[in-house]
Amino acid sequence: MEASNAQKKPSSIPEENPAELKDGSLLAAVDLGSNSFHLLIARLEQGEIRPAQALSEKVQLAAGLEGDELSQDAIDRGLECLSRFAQLLQSVEPQRIRVVGTNALRRARNRKKFTEPARRILGAPIDVIYGREEARLVYLGVAHTLADDSQSRLVVDIGGGSTEFAIGERFEPRKLESLQLGCVTYSRDCFKDGLLSKSNYKSAYDRACVEVSHIRKQFRRKHWVEAVGSSGTLQAIEGILIAQQWADGMITRKGLTRMRKALLGFKHLDDINLEGLSDARRSVIASGVAITEAIFDVLDIDEMRSSRGALREGVVYDLVGRLSHEDVRERSIRALMQRYHVDEEVSELVARRARTLFDATYKAWELTGSDRELLIWAALSQEIGKAIAHKHYHRHGAYLLRNSDLPGFPQHEQEDMAILVEGQHGKIRQELFGDSEGPALLRLQRLVALLRLATLFKYVEPLEKLPNFAINASSKGLKLDFPEDWLEQHPLTAQELAQQQAVFGRLGLRLAFS
Amino acid sequence: MEASNAQKKPSSIPEENPAELKDGSLLAAVDLGSNSFHLLIARLEQGEIRPAQALSEKVQLAAGLEGDELSQDAIDRGLECLSRFAQLLQSVEPQRIRVVGTNALRRARNRKKFTEPARRILGAPIDVIYGREEARLVYLGVAHTLADDSQSRLVVDIGGGSTEFAIGERFEPRKLESLQLGCVTYSRDCFKDGLLSKSNYKSAYDRACVEVSHIRKQFRRKHWVEAVGSSGTLQAIEGILIAQQWADGMITRKGLTRMRKALLGFKHLDDINLEGLSDARRSVIASGVAITEAIFDVLDIDEMRSSRGALREGVVYDLVGRLSHEDVRERSIRALMQRYHVDEEVSELVARRARTLFDATYKAWELTGSDRELLIWAALSQEIGKAIAHKHYHRHGAYLLRNSDLPGFPQHEQEDMAILVEGQHGKIRQELFGDSEGPALLRLQRLVALLRLATLFKYVEPLEKLPNFAINASSKGLKLDFPEDWLEQHPLTAQELAQQQAVFGRLGLRLAFS
Repeated sequence: MEASNAQKKPSSIPEENPAELKDGSLLAAVDLGSNSFHLLIARLEQGEIRPAQALSEKVQLAAGLEGDELSQDAIDRGLECLSRFAQLLQSVEPQRIRVVGTNALRRARNRKKFTEPARRILGAPIDVIYGREEARLVYLGVAHTLADDSQSRLVVDIGGGSTEFAIGERFEPRKLESLQLGCVTYSRDCFKDGLLSKSNYKSAYDRACVEVSHIRKQFRRKHWVEAVGSSGTLQAIEGILIAQQWADGMITRKGLTRMRKALLGFKHLDDINLEGLSDARRSVIASGVAITEAIFDVLDIDEMRSSRGALREGVVYDLVGRLSHEDVRERSIRALMQRYHVDEEVSELVARRARTLFDATYKAWELTGSDRELLIWAALSQEIGKAIAHKHYHRHGAYLLRNSDLPGFPQHEQEDMAILVEGQHGKIRQELFGDSEGPALLRLQRLVALLRLATLFKYVEPLEKLPNFAINASSKGLKLDFPEDWLEQHPLTAQELAQQQAVFGRLGLRLAFS
Repeated sequence: MEASNAQKKPSSIPEENPAELKDGSLLAAVDLGSNSFHLLIARLEQGEIRPAQALSEKVQLAAGLEGDELSQDAIDRGLECLSRFAQLLQSVEPQRIRVVGTNALRRARNRKKFTEPARRILGAPIDVIYGREEARLVYLGVAHTLADDSQSRLVVDIGGGSTEFAIGERFEPRKLESLQLGCVTYSRDCFKDGLLSKSNYKSAYDRACVEVSHIRKQFRRKHWVEAVGSSGTLQAIEGILIAQQWADGMITRKGLTRMRKALLGFKHLDDINLEGLSDARRSVIASGVAITEAIFDVLDIDEMRSSRGALREGVVYDLVGRLSHEDVRERSIRALMQRYHVDEEVSELVARRARTLFDATYKAWELTGSDRELLIWAALSQEIGKAIAHKHYHRHGAYLLRNSDLPGFPQHEQEDMAILVEGQHGKIRQELFGDSEGPALLRLQRLVALLRLATLFKYVEPLEKLPNFAINASSKGLKLDFPEDWLEQHPLTAQELAQQQAVFGRLGLRLAFS
């Protein structure tokens, strides 16, 4: 199926031009962590990242989570911090900024109250990422700080609300996990009223042991050679151990024991006074040490050194990959197709048609380069649900896209692809588009319409090749022009197109054909 | 974990004794089809099935589907038929009767209005089976009527509401599919008011072509050597072709063309008068021929012979397998574990504990042999959801169990296993047990409690071996007795058990331990 020349076919679609990413380009990552927000502006120099500017602020979003709702206070603290970040970000082009949110935003049901104003302040979308995706990016950030040898590494990042674990070699993570334990939440839940008793410390340690034991089998010592810690918590612990001369340049089991004893000498978290401990870290150091001890004991770690590399560095390296078309998302979709035994021939056919249809409509329908990517990926993974069952496979596919760990994808992109795949055929359910409205709803409706059309011919072409036909789009809908008599001679296709007209109506579009 | 001798440990659990299935045993299958109900009583003779009694009645449940609801009329017709069947079934032991419902019951949302009285009338549970499971059983029934050669066969069964397709060799089906096209529904939808016009016939044919084209790639001629038809429709067509001498002992393309022409010579379905056509078949023969023509054209079939083997024979052979412990359900669960890369060591451990716990509680909790099977299978597939994501894996596992095609399982058993797997940890959601109440609810709550306990120690044992402990069950709950001091020395386990106490409360059970 080639669009005929009759239509105005765009020569290129509006996507970031990889050629533009040249030596000296500025890139930026913003990490909206559960404990702190971080900004990193970096300059690309001979393929490597050199930090140009960095800023961190203790916002403690996680402490502002009441149930599953962010408090107004926490939202305000966060937004104020972002307006300060925004000043520095003015030097960076918007498509070279990536903003990621982690555990506190994953958990907050009212996250839009924060993410929507945040998007306006920063001028870039807020990607709330899944735990395993966070682990992948942390690994990437740490890997770039380590010697390029091939031994297996365990990377641990203790955050404010969740802790990430990764094992890999060089720049390739093999196992990724994220657990619900963090220094801010444990400090709040286990050290009630800030009391630093032995039993409070033990309850934090016990709880962490239970959590970590869930991944013990896959992450214990026999699976790696060295252990590396990312995150402020582990850097702070290492700093104190070195300052106090309790350990020799790294975190050790013995050092942790001495530190625990020293901590239990204080009555209240506020009283803690240790050389090398910053004020900002005081309220979460005890829970951080308890969690670290638990991780050491359950995974059988003897020593761990800390790395400066963290989520924000990983985000920048990932961004370089995306802008140079080494997009890990593409790899994720391919892996998904393989895992669920998709018929590649059919998927590629549908993807090709989706591309043709997109290129003929995107201007009139105000779609962007990233919409095009999502449409193609949805087309490629359109049949994954058949691995579960043929019946309702579009819904099973949506379930898998919504719930799987897909490296590289933020939640909202997985959600969009799920909507497209569920909408690919059958009735359009009222709830399909969730609470989208305005331009966001229009965008999804149009993408669903494109995928439906791309899919419609899926079973017909193997029987009889589709002819060239013209596609004319306006803001109200689109018109397909087939060669004379072709539709009369192909009543099945005509029938299917006629059935789509009603569905297009529900999508707010007109479909005409002749 | 061995239950200690302190408790009354049953020597055997109440399951069907395979030794009892001896030569001469009677077995029965009831097929609650969308067009007809069938009863087959068979006698086991040297491993083969000899029909002892057979009965079929045209009930046309599918015609009584209004939207997704069975009409009261259809329900009454069905139940009256079953009371006649029940008389003959008195000679067969209840555990050797299997009753399966197909498409009309799959679709009917109010199916319980039929299945509950039906269960009382027949004294056996009503298994509503999925489309692919139906295809598997049809294949099994047909395979036993064919020569034991190894060439690939396509088996087609045109039912009242759905049509099943299978490809396999000998007794092993390889591909199974079920499509929503059937002679009763097509007759109702395409031949409005019974008018037998050319355009009505064509609309039935076109619609069937579109449906069948969905499976064309996997089922067309290059994948098999011979085509065999099961079902009343295909037998009737073959019978007419032979009676009219339009074909030579089988269904051919040319024969179908002649038959279509003959049919279009009548104005109304009621007028059809062809040698070899029974009165009961008259209203659905035209739609049946249109569907058959579409299947021949899309899958490129030249000729097809019909087989007497059908769903009911397949059900009986499957029952023999189950009673001889060659249960295809066991194989399905193993395949599921493999597909989703379950850690077998962990699953087997949990299954062993589930077994021990079951054997110590089943009497007090009034559980049966088939409950035991479901519990073990749920324990084995308990971690399949991790293939999707670690987070909420119990819910993903439930989704997979509920929606996958699992050969051998009726819907309600998959539903039960899904409930168990979802209930294995985390909070017990209000909706978990659906609309179950009374003894059905009690049973599910108890099975969930057993799986939770079996799972609880999953992460502990690799660290430290569990001691023997005694399990004492009463109708109100259960009590675990650990060796002295053991719990004091193992505070994590004690803590997890304490957490379970609240959950057990929500399950209507008391959990005590010391």
